[in-house]
Amino acid sequence: MLTEFKRRMRQTEYRRLFATLVASKVGGVVLLLALIKIGTWYFASPALADDAAAPPPAYINPINTMWTVIAAFLVFFMQAGFMMLEAGFARTRETVNVLLEGIVDTCLCGILFYAWGFAFMFGSGNGWIGHQYFFLQGTPDTYGSSGVAFLAFWLFQFAFADTCSTITSGAMVGRTGFVGDLLYSFGVSGFIYPIIGHWAWGPDGWLNTIKPVPFHDFAGSTVVHTIGGFIALAGAIALGPRLGRKFKRDGGGMPPGHDMVIASVGGVILWFGWYGFNPGSTLSGMDMIGCGRVAANTTLAACAGGLSGLAYMYPRNKVWDCGITVNGFLAGLVAITCPCYWVSPLGAICLGAIAGVVCVLAIDLVEWLRVDDPVGAVAVHGACGIWGTLSLGLFATGEFGAPTPTGPDNSAGSVVKGLFYGGGTDQLVAQMIGSACITTATFVVAMVLMYAVKATGTLRVSKDGEIEGLDLHEHGGPAYPELVGGMHGASPAEMSESVPAAAVGAVLAASK
Amino acid sequence: MLTEFKRRMRQTEYRRLFATLVASKVGGVVLLLALIKIGTWYFASPALADDAAAPPPAYINPINTMWTVIAAFLVFFMQAGFMMLEAGFARTRETVNVLLEGIVDTCLCGILFYAWGFAFMFGSGNGWIGHQYFFLQGTPDTYGSSGVAFLAFWLFQFAFADTCSTITSGAMVGRTGFVGDLLYSFGVSGFIYPIIGHWAWGPDGWLNTIKPVPFHDFAGSTVVHTIGGFIALAGAIALGPRLGRKFKRDGGGMPPGHDMVIASVGGVILWFGWYGFNPGSTLSGMDMIGCGRVAANTTLAACAGGLSGLAYMYPRNKVWDCGITVNGFLAGLVAITCPCYWVSPLGAICLGAIAGVVCVLAIDLVEWLRVDDPVGAVAVHGACGIWGTLSLGLFATGEFGAPTPTGPDNSAGSVVKGLFYGGGTDQLVAQMIGSACITTATFVVAMVLMYAVKATGTLRVSKDGEIEGLDLHEHGGPAYPELVGGMHGASPAEMSESVPAAAVGAVLAASK
Amino acid sequence: MLTEFKRRMRQTEYRRLFATLVASKVGGVVLLLALIKIGTWYFASPALADDAAAPPPAYINPINTMWTVIAAFLVFFMQAGFMMLEAGFARTRETVNVLLEGIVDTCLCGILFYAWGFAFMFGSGNGWIGHQYFFLQGTPDTYGSSGVAFLAFWLFQFAFADTCSTITSGAMVGRTGFVGDLLYSFGVSGFIYPIIGHWAWGPDGWLNTIKPVPFHDFAGSTVVHTIGGFIALAGAIALGPRLGRKFKRDGGGMPPGHDMVIASVGGVILWFGWYGFNPGSTLSGMDMIGCGRVAANTTLAACAGGLSGLAYMYPRNKVWDCGITVNGFLAGLVAITCPCYWVSPLGAICLGAIAGVVCVLAIDLVEWLRVDDPVGAVAVHGACGIWGTLSLGLFATGEFGAPTPTGPDNSAGSVVKGLFYGGGTDQLVAQMIGSACITTATFVVAMVLMYAVKATGTLRVSKDGEIEGLDLHEHGGPAYPELVGGMHGASPAEMSESVPAAAVGAVLAASK
Repeated sequence: MLTEFKRRMRQTEYRRLFATLVASKVGGVVLLLALIKIGTWYFASPALADDAAAPPPAYINPINTMWTVIAAFLVFFMQAGFMMLEAGFARTRETVNVLLEGIVDTCLCGILFYAWGFAFMFGSGNGWIGHQYFFLQGTPDTYGSSGVAFLAFWLFQFAFADTCSTITSGAMVGRTGFVGDLLYSFGVSGFIYPIIGHWAWGPDGWLNTIKPVPFHDFAGSTVVHTIGGFIALAGAIALGPRLGRKFKRDGGGMPPGHDMVIASVGGVILWFGWYGFNPGSTLSGMDMIGCGRVAANTTLAACAGGLSGLAYMYPRNKVWDCGITVNGFLAGLVAITCPCYWVSPLGAICLGAIAGVVCVLAIDLVEWLRVDDPVGAVAVHGACGIWGTLSLGLFATGEFGAPTPTGPDNSAGSVVKGLFYGGGTDQLVAQMIGSACITTATFVVAMVLMYAVKATGTLRVSKDGEIEGLDLHEHGGPAYPELVGGMHGASPAEMSESVPAAAVGAVLAASK
Repeated sequence: MLTEFKRRMRQTEYRRLFATLVASKVGGVVLLLALIKIGTWYFASPALADDAAAPPPAYINPINTMWTVIAAFLVFFMQAGFMMLEAGFARTRETVNVLLEGIVDTCLCGILFYAWGFAFMFGSGNGWIGHQYFFLQGTPDTYGSSGVAFLAFWLFQFAFADTCSTITSGAMVGRTGFVGDLLYSFGVSGFIYPIIGHWAWGPDGWLNTIKPVPFHDFAGSTVVHTIGGFIALAGAIALGPRLGRKFKRDGGGMPPGHDMVIASVGGVILWFGWYGFNPGSTLSGMDMIGCGRVAANTTLAACAGGLSGLAYMYPRNKVWDCGITVNGFLAGLVAITCPCYWVSPLGAICLGAIAGVVCVLAIDLVEWLRVDDPVGAVAVHGACGIWGTLSLGLFATGEFGAPTPTGPDNSAGSVVKGLFYGGGTDQLVAQMIGSACITTATFVVAMVLMYAVKATGTLRVSKDGEIEGLDLHEHGGPAYPELVGGMHGASPAEMSESVPAAAVGAVLAASK
Repeated sequence: MLTEFKRRMRQTEYRRLFATLVASKVGGVVLLLALIKIGTWYFASPALADDAAAPPPAYINPINTMWTVIAAFLVFFMQAGFMMLEAGFARTRETVNVLLEGIVDTCLCGILFYAWGFAFMFGSGNGWIGHQYFFLQGTPDTYGSSGVAFLAFWLFQFAFADTCSTITSGAMVGRTGFVGDLLYSFGVSGFIYPIIGHWAWGPDGWLNTIKPVPFHDFAGSTVVHTIGGFIALAGAIALGPRLGRKFKRDGGGMPPGHDMVIASVGGVILWFGWYGFNPGSTLSGMDMIGCGRVAANTTLAACAGGLSGLAYMYPRNKVWDCGITVNGFLAGLVAITCPCYWVSPLGAICLGAIAGVVCVLAIDLVEWLRVDDPVGAVAVHGACGIWGTLSLGLFATGEFGAPTPTGPDNSAGSVVKGLFYGGGTDQLVAQMIGSACITTATFVVAMVLMYAVKATGTLRVSKDGEIEGLDLHEHGGPAYPELVGGMHGASPAEMSESVPAAAVGAVLAASK
């Protein structure tokens, strides 16, 4: 064809035309550009077109930002779930404390993540810490190569940091002083989470560079949940158990929470919020296949975890245990958080089912260690976070490349293959290294932090305060004032001139 | 013009140019392709461009998938609403049972819909059952012609299946054994819902082929709500009423639920989740006019149903009834679910208002039949599902073609016109056929299922267990342990060395 | 180059070619159009391309509509938050009343906003009132220049109107008759909110035309919150305080709410819903930078408000007050609602922190004025709405042009600069004018409305009814029937033949 082309070029007519066009600079440039452009549009497949040297289509970044920011809203909503779950598993007299800690941890985390938390975690720096974007100064329009609006990405990551902080408080319910809570939360949200998180998710985190394959944690089984769970463990150890708490091997047991409605619905809200946590971590609505797969895997792991927790407990005490079922599906959710992008639905079911059992065994272990964790945070988030992180090395199918943009995990284009799919042990070893390093570092630093706060005398309330209950002692009133007589100002009984028993609630009448 | 064109073609200059270009294979092909492409881009309206032979723009499927998957999240969140609504309408002593059934039904449904439910319902097969995609094997990237990521569509439909399963449990509150619940839920999620649902929503469901016009059910008034409601009816019949329950014509009445806060907020969460249910059923964010219309119609039907239920009840007992208002707006939501795409806002208000009255009348009928349905599931979902399905044949305006992609209803491009808008009775007859066939089939099969479970002796708890309450009998503890003294291990009172009345809740103190 | 071009035009070859092409009408038109189109595609940046004379890309309106309609869902969900917040801050005996008012106000608002509310507010007309789109007749596919599907925009604005209506009821808890509530809600949703709102957000509202700079209210600090708060104030004044309510300067104090779990979680749900309120008011997912900034600013203002409220109260009563922390973050959210698009994160933190203090001071003022506002609606929504509106004139950075499409604020392309950023006092004065006019007008009209309803004798329940409690008096039963013995039909005790204390709840047993 080239010969034919050359031959025709020799023909007078064509040469004359071509020479004329080229000679005309305006016409020539226009035609050349037009042909290049047309070629790009015509011959490129849609997917290729997105990656072309030409600027990407104008819809990509808005679609990805919309996806990320809606996911951030859902992750934020998990705060309501945590507050309900932890309040429901607490006793009545410390309920206001649980609620207020959830709110204040969120507020504090927001300010700290604005000031320096985000800078430590997601700023460039070295493998150990970032130092860019302090006080959100000097931020570009979009974060990294994700194309997501910078502040949308900030919000998404703030919600993650907030989750980690709130997980911590779960194991410390019922005896932590409020000032102590403020102090350790300052350490968790401002330093431990963002700095150790940088190792895995920072743009130059050292766990991304280990050989032969990097550590992966798609949405934070380790970064959010194991970190949160092991800070919780350190806190529970530093605090000691609640007054009067007897452990199973001493003939006692975990006292029940005071409201299973609140606790169970809180758990379902967490499940709902997890649809922001995991699918949102693609940072990409354009990666629709990935988003769908992550959402389905997340669901199936939760289903399997709930069923396996329920089934595993039944033979032990011959009751269908609601609390353990809630913790079971949460365990499945924690476990799938790391591998959700890379496993098949069948893999999600298997690893979720195992997580439900891991959760029960870990609750037993924490109990055996005489550590008082009223909501099971160490088991659900700490232990199942480790299991989920390792499970990637077993169940990754090797079929799915990570999304572009990459998510916090910096894993663009990575194809991860686990042991059960013929990928050998490389990924499993990387997961073990990452999990072990982060878990150990977190636990050590958290112990230092908790004992430092303990040294200030604020970590645990006084014995009198604990017996009175944190709500009356620290917060000026109970969660349900009409059940105990009004606490502030006039009681309802005083407010009404004549109050029939039926109107105020029989408790009040009965307690006269 | 053509003559002029031919004349000029005879001119030396033009002919020479054209001949030259054509003669050059490279140049000719390039120019030809360019002109075709340009013509497509230039002359096609945006909408037409999407349908062109060229691959559709790369944003369409991601936008539609994002819409569908976010809608799926909202539909999933309805589980929290159902749990709260049913728990609030239940009595204290069976609250944990209600919560756990909600959770376990979800988990079970997820696994079954993965294994074969989806295959029966949305796989190709024949008019009566699908048999494709068992265990999600062999799935393409996107579902059917919708362009929605396959697993996102799976998640959306799982959430629908889960809704149907949970509706069922509402009428069976307070006396169903937990093993019985597991058994019948297995039948509902694994067989009844997906197989009968296939008739209407399967890719080759026989109700899509009836003449002269096919049956339509945009988002499931029949497929989800009537099926759920009539399984609930079969369950309530097979179980019989709760111990001590006296019906109105015997001088009794429905005992009130134990917590109207939880019940009412649960109802509002259901309304919120319905914004996933109905607008999401377009499966298409690109169909923005349709999504807006469905969302507005859904809202207006709910508003009208709430007001009409409230107003219709007031003259009867001279109180402004909160429970009936909640059931009224739910009735409006159930009714608009089928016709939401094809009616005007005025139509939505009319049919929603009628639904509020239908709901009250159906509650009366169920009571008169001496069927004990503690939450009104048969009336709200069963009866109003039928009304909503029929209402399409009355109120469809004939203005709106169904969306492309089509939603589960397979109704791409259908323009539906009802009796009140001059469309005659064709659509109404089709709706009657579809509703009657599905309702009858569901009821018959569900009766068989429920009596089969009853034959195993697990459907209803023992008399002693029911009097003790399901929570203590089956689940090892009450929903609010501090109101009745702690059940597991140490009671709160035992845990503290000295507990003032104010700290633990006066009930505990009062009950000493 | 032009000279060169002209010179070449004189050349035989080129002129001949050009003349030929032009002479051929078909060929000429095709080539001309192609060149224009190619130039548009090639030389335009993606952003410019959207504004080109050619139809905008087909994805813009769907993306913006999807964003708006999902935001509308979130704003709707705020109703659950308001119901929980207000019920939690109410006393047990009026809880059902609070819940039912929340639901019925929503239903009524939907029908009124369909019938004429939207027409008054968003229809064209004059500066004072709109009169277009009554009963949603004659609506185009999209609203104004926003490109958002008309009914999606309607839904978004309905949710705003509903919010305003619900805010009002908060200050009137505990003594408002249900018929009185229906009457004043009719006035609020049908007339006050839409007509006064038109002044700021109507397509031709007079506050958009004041000189030298127009009044701005991005998402409704004034239009929704101040209007709601001052109607609430008028209602609380017209009603007078609850029976037995003693004010602080008379030696009393605000009685506590009956359930801090419900109240606090309701507050967090409101925060979650605010992510629809503020970011959704861009009406544009394409404006991704703006959406991200608004979402982050909203978060930071809430965080700062919560912390400042908590910190400001602590020295006063030496307790860490949960209720004030909830109202503090709500105050921050109300304040950031007006300026969220135009301020920096630092500005958001500053104005949010101030809002937390403004809220506490305003609660003190309302108390000092002997106005009984059980949930703090006047302080949170009224006072902080004013502060937020003014804060735009102080903190606007002058960096951010408003989005296109414009949001309800009609502020396309506006760059707003406040006093602290060198913008002088122009914007501050405009904000003062707008806030003063709307606040005054609202308060005057609301006083007239409330006293008119009072004249019908329905505004306040009878003294006996109030002492009995609204739930028993107006709604036929309490919120928690098992705490007071069943009210309708059979009590749970009657239903069971033998009920051990543990099964029904100790209260019932204890009250025997």
